[in-house]
Amino acid sequence: MNTLGSRLRVHLFGESHGAGVGCIVEGVPPGTRIDTAAMQTRLDQRRPGTSHLVSARNEPDRLVIQSGTYNERATGAPVTLWIANNDARSQDYKSIHHRPRPGHADWPAHQWAKGFEDPRGGGPYSGRLTAPLVAAAALVAPMLEEANLLAAAYLQQVGDVEARIESDAAAVQARVAASPVHAADPDAEAAFVSAIEAARTERDSIGGCVGFVTSPMPVGWGDPFFDGIESQWARALFAIPAVKGVEFGAGFAAATMLGSAHNDAYRPSPGGLEPVTNHAGGALGGRTSGAPIWGRVAIKPASSIAQSQMTVDLDTGKSVAIETKGRHDPCIAVRAVPVVRAVAELCLADMLLLARHERSS
Amino acid sequence: MNTLGSRLRVHLFGESHGAGVGCIVEGVPPGTRIDTAAMQTRLDQRRPGTSHLVSARNEPDRLVIQSGTYNERATGAPVTLWIANNDARSQDYKSIHHRPRPGHADWPAHQWAKGFEDPRGGGPYSGRLTAPLVAAAALVAPMLEEANLLAAAYLQQVGDVEARIESDAAAVQARVAASPVHAADPDAEAAFVSAIEAARTERDSIGGCVGFVTSPMPVGWGDPFFDGIESQWARALFAIPAVKGVEFGAGFAAATMLGSAHNDAYRPSPGGLEPVTNHAGGALGGRTSGAPIWGRVAIKPASSIAQSQMTVDLDTGKSVAIETKGRHDPCIAVRAVPVVRAVAELCLADMLLLARHERSS
Amino acid sequence: MNTLGSRLRVHLFGESHGAGVGCIVEGVPPGTRIDTAAMQTRLDQRRPGTSHLVSARNEPDRLVIQSGTYNERATGAPVTLWIANNDARSQDYKSIHHRPRPGHADWPAHQWAKGFEDPRGGGPYSGRLTAPLVAAAALVAPMLEEANLLAAAYLQQVGDVEARIESDAAAVQARVAASPVHAADPDAEAAFVSAIEAARTERDSIGGCVGFVTSPMPVGWGDPFFDGIESQWARALFAIPAVKGVEFGAGFAAATMLGSAHNDAYRPSPGGLEPVTNHAGGALGGRTSGAPIWGRVAIKPASSIAQSQMTVDLDTGKSVAIETKGRHDPCIAVRAVPVVRAVAELCLADMLLLARHERSS
Amino acid sequence: MNTLGSRLRVHLFGESHGAGVGCIVEGVPPGTRIDTAAMQTRLDQRRPGTSHLVSARNEPDRLVIQSGTYNERATGAPVTLWIANNDARSQDYKSIHHRPRPGHADWPAHQWAKGFEDPRGGGPYSGRLTAPLVAAAALVAPMLEEANLLAAAYLQQVGDVEARIESDAAAVQARVAASPVHAADPDAEAAFVSAIEAARTERDSIGGCVGFVTSPMPVGWGDPFFDGIESQWARALFAIPAVKGVEFGAGFAAATMLGSAHNDAYRPSPGGLEPVTNHAGGALGGRTSGAPIWGRVAIKPASSIAQSQMTVDLDTGKSVAIETKGRHDPCIAVRAVPVVRAVAELCLADMLLLARHERSS
Repeated sequence: MNTLGSRLRVHLFGESHGAGVGCIVEGVPPGTRIDTAAMQTRLDQRRPGTSHLVSARNEPDRLVIQSGTYNERATGAPVTLWIANNDARSQDYKSIHHRPRPGHADWPAHQWAKGFEDPRGGGPYSGRLTAPLVAAAALVAPMLEEANLLAAAYLQQVGDVEARIESDAAAVQARVAASPVHAADPDAEAAFVSAIEAARTERDSIGGCVGFVTSPMPVGWGDPFFDGIESQWARALFAIPAVKGVEFGAGFAAATMLGSAHNDAYRPSPGGLEPVTNHAGGALGGRTSGAPIWGRVAIKPASSIAQSQMTVDLDTGKSVAIETKGRHDPCIAVRAVPVVRAVAELCLADMLLLARHERSS
Repeated sequence: MNTLGSRLRVHLFGESHGAGVGCIVEGVPPGTRIDTAAMQTRLDQRRPGTSHLVSARNEPDRLVIQSGTYNERATGAPVTLWIANNDARSQDYKSIHHRPRPGHADWPAHQWAKGFEDPRGGGPYSGRLTAPLVAAAALVAPMLEEANLLAAAYLQQVGDVEARIESDAAAVQARVAASPVHAADPDAEAAFVSAIEAARTERDSIGGCVGFVTSPMPVGWGDPFFDGIESQWARALFAIPAVKGVEFGAGFAAATMLGSAHNDAYRPSPGGLEPVTNHAGGALGGRTSGAPIWGRVAIKPASSIAQSQMTVDLDTGKSVAIETKGRHDPCIAVRAVPVVRAVAELCLADMLLLARHERSS
Repeated sequence: MNTLGSRLRVHLFGESHGAGVGCIVEGVPPGTRIDTAAMQTRLDQRRPGTSHLVSARNEPDRLVIQSGTYNERATGAPVTLWIANNDARSQDYKSIHHRPRPGHADWPAHQWAKGFEDPRGGGPYSGRLTAPLVAAAALVAPMLEEANLLAAAYLQQVGDVEARIESDAAAVQARVAASPVHAADPDAEAAFVSAIEAARTERDSIGGCVGFVTSPMPVGWGDPFFDGIESQWARALFAIPAVKGVEFGAGFAAATMLGSAHNDAYRPSPGGLEPVTNHAGGALGGRTSGAPIWGRVAIKPASSIAQSQMTVDLDTGKSVAIETKGRHDPCIAVRAVPVVRAVAELCLADMLLLARHERSS
Repeated sequence: MNTLGSRLRVHLFGESHGAGVGCIVEGVPPGTRIDTAAMQTRLDQRRPGTSHLVSARNEPDRLVIQSGTYNERATGAPVTLWIANNDARSQDYKSIHHRPRPGHADWPAHQWAKGFEDPRGGGPYSGRLTAPLVAAAALVAPMLEEANLLAAAYLQQVGDVEARIESDAAAVQARVAASPVHAADPDAEAAFVSAIEAARTERDSIGGCVGFVTSPMPVGWGDPFFDGIESQWARALFAIPAVKGVEFGAGFAAATMLGSAHNDAYRPSPGGLEPVTNHAGGALGGRTSGAPIWGRVAIKPASSIAQSQMTVDLDTGKSVAIETKGRHDPCIAVRAVPVVRAVAELCLADMLLLARHERSS
């Protein structure tokens, strides 16, 4: 329940309009340097209210570390991260309490909790819970850096506009940092912005895809079957609200390919051998091949739109039209980019801790 | 490690060319009826050697139950399922031990195990380990049936040929049973067969997609974030060898949609309300919406092809061309169909056991 | 790591002299009534500074609920409990940083964390982390009450003074609430107080035993082997700092008995049958027999004493005598009583959630 | 459910009078040498039918490895161990199906499984499931040996006869191997045999204690609270059928001690410092202190005795006297000795795998 990872374990908690959101991170090695300012910077990349292309909710997202550190180092005890909610406007949501919003978790949440769900905004289902995920990733970033491991994410598609697939994680990271929509491809960026603004003008929202790519990986990390690279990453990526598809390497395009074209031939390399191409997305038999792990994540259009939509009033049992108030994103794929990166980093950190273990066995 | 599920737990073991393959299934409620013949029938649907469209390996796949049952009922103790290997021809693989096959797990397996890996065929990475998954699903099938829950799978795409998306699990199941390639759409079936035979004639393999769909679900099953429906199912589905993409509902197509088109509006229903469309694939906020869970799984073309491919001889460090011997499938998507169904059933059974718990709390 | 339970899961965090201590509680059924005042009362029973028989550390132990509740009900989302530290005097501990205190975790903590441990007091090893356990138990108490389940604990032994074994949980609870040393046996209470005061006068500490007993249990809860009643409870009880022994029923005395005397014969009862005696401590084959679960927990004398003790100065490598400053308990068995009760309640709640599940399967 | 360990994971299955018993062992590092003959020898030490002091059930306990090894080495895949049942005489148990035996799991098992339990002998509750635990321990023994880690167990008490506490694991192991009752103390051995024979003559059974002790340990292994050394070991030890108490170091005697006597003072040592005494049993704050882990396990007298005992006939609801037929042990503490050692070894191996991980982080 709300737990990610086996060596590095993240336990998520909090609600969109409650006191705040946070997580416990277990397994951080003692001595890991804690750079609170750098963590805050990472959080700021995800935070709403920064431009007209994202939600206007104004949250400072101020990070507080409640446990697990001493003198700016991890002690090895569970690290608790806490981000208070400031600009929660729960009154925006009151009128729709008994009128479940299409596309949101309202209806299943209501049925599951038998009416005891938190009706304020997305409650514990909210995308706001991805803030502590970003903070947790920032916490383990120094560990990854030391191990020369990098995970980057970028806006790869908005509506019908597609950017090229990227394969150099470091370059992606630099370019994304400079883009208001987290695009790595400057040619696509303008088209992305147009598509998002068009949706926004129509009081609509639009879907998109986020690409991810790591630096070249050590060979053999992962496990066959249920703890394979793809299984672990997909579980983590599908946890991000609005994700509806995940693919690695050629992914769904592999369905259209012949084996002779899809197979990645090997050539000699200093480490023994390496794949010439990387249709596999860096994973074979659940383990890393040595090539970067890469793939794409499909993000649905935001469910909250300023247009009228049909639902049912649970009190009367009658159809009613509602308009979702609140301050929302015209294209949540934009804000999903730092979250996909964070989730990839958390997966890498978990794998790194396991691999250190196995290397020394 | 090799464990699926939380209430219903499957622990997988065995190797492609060792003594056999099997699994322990924990959590089967005492009193569950054990129909060994029905389980054997299910296994037979996955088994190789049945036509020229699948591998010629001849395995009877005879199921043995080693523990956990008494008088044809589950006792509540762990049920151990065992399927001996008969037609293991490990000599086919000897020559390629130090020449990792492109697309297979050979190279990462070798690096991870420091040379101690099982070199016979796919070892513990083999698709043969999906046989116990099918057996485990057959074991819990009566439990699902009693709860009126159904999961079906079908061949939805081969190369560029696509069949329609199905939404009626019961109808799919009936039609798939009658199709040599597990197709639900009779129009597409012939085109599938042609595409597969074409690949086979070229000594090549071809990719495909498997669709899955359940019966309408109870509302509210699942959990937000890491144990959401999509997270759990994707983890399980990506464990199937050769799966490279998983999507729910509109999936990657959602990236091209506007929110006004993608949102599933609600209408009144006997249970309160129900979605009119099902772009969400039956899951909202990690929980079931009441509509069927549906989606697609991308299957890469089989890595074993009878054409020459480039690899590296690990002894000499030089490039060499190899041809993968052995008896292989021209389109593993065909044989993945009963496995996808099995995995979906195991996910349903795990959810069912949890839901019973929560219903009574 | 720091996680208790499978259906009801408690994740512990915090340090003795950091910002505070707390826990996440997962699995609390939606709708569970949250009585913050009652939870505070339970915390007050464990809190230091209440008499000369316990530590003088003055902590208000003010409980804050950070997530998981709405309108005084659990929503089903993770409940986060937080207790800030107020009277942390970390300067008391500075001088002993490199002079590990006998009986404390200092030395193993230092070696494990390679010098990055939190040197302030017991850090994350401190008995102060039992405060959130008590709060968590208070959180689930209404759930147990509704199910007519009760767990009680009492001071059963101090030094050589033993009180009688109790078998009526409700009576124990009432009497313990009225006793300054949490004794259930008024005759033993005075002798306990004398023994504790004698140790205190000698600037020493003294060991003791805490007894526990539940109300009669439903039959069949638990599991054989690693998740048996005794396995689960012992894991939880040994987590309490200073616990060095756990026994169920006759326990170590069973070693001296003959089977004919130890076996609990059955007699008819409304539920079918019941044991006449309860040497088994309420557990057979890892499952409840229907009789109360009872047993004893051995608590070592507090390691912090105001006498000089020998240790090694890690900087010089030389032997040195140290005196443990700080404000400590002459008999931690006294304050362990509400903690043992809390742990027993958390175990009961976890079992209850599982049992509801199985009952409805 | 039936799973031990986190890095080294043992999943137990099987029944006393079914096809056999076994386990999966996950986490065995690839390359670990598999010495089947040595494993068989270890199994033979636990096996019944070897003298008049133990059960007459005649089981060859022939070990079969079903997966996870190749060329006498572990491959890193799950290792499946299987021991067929030969001399299962289930007819001995038929008459008592509806007359639960005092002290056995019959009654809770019947209630939990709603009548679907395996009625043959102890079913999945049987001490026979400790055979695969011994085999699993023998599997990891080479790993421990390489790390210079040793765990020994010995018969420490029978009825009122106590042997001395041992502190040298290697010496214990040598002496126990030569003793028909697994005693380490030759003086006590004869008294043990007399006590057991006396109980046997009276058609009764007798309780006892098993001591355990490891070689000196690396410092800092373990974790505070729920994964502390004592928590982990106690969970594992209480899983052994008939165990009713577990203590570490001074254990229950610590309740009678003053802190000044109980605290283990430190003195300089090559590793920094070491405790002069070891009342703590090798564990402080849940972590190893460097001294051997030692303690005692209380074993109840066997529940199966050849005397008449009172139970209830579930069909008639009336009291009846039964006599437990079958072939049983007069003192199961004797046969528990190799099992306690095995469980201690499995705990050590799990800790070793974790520690390697942490050392390299």
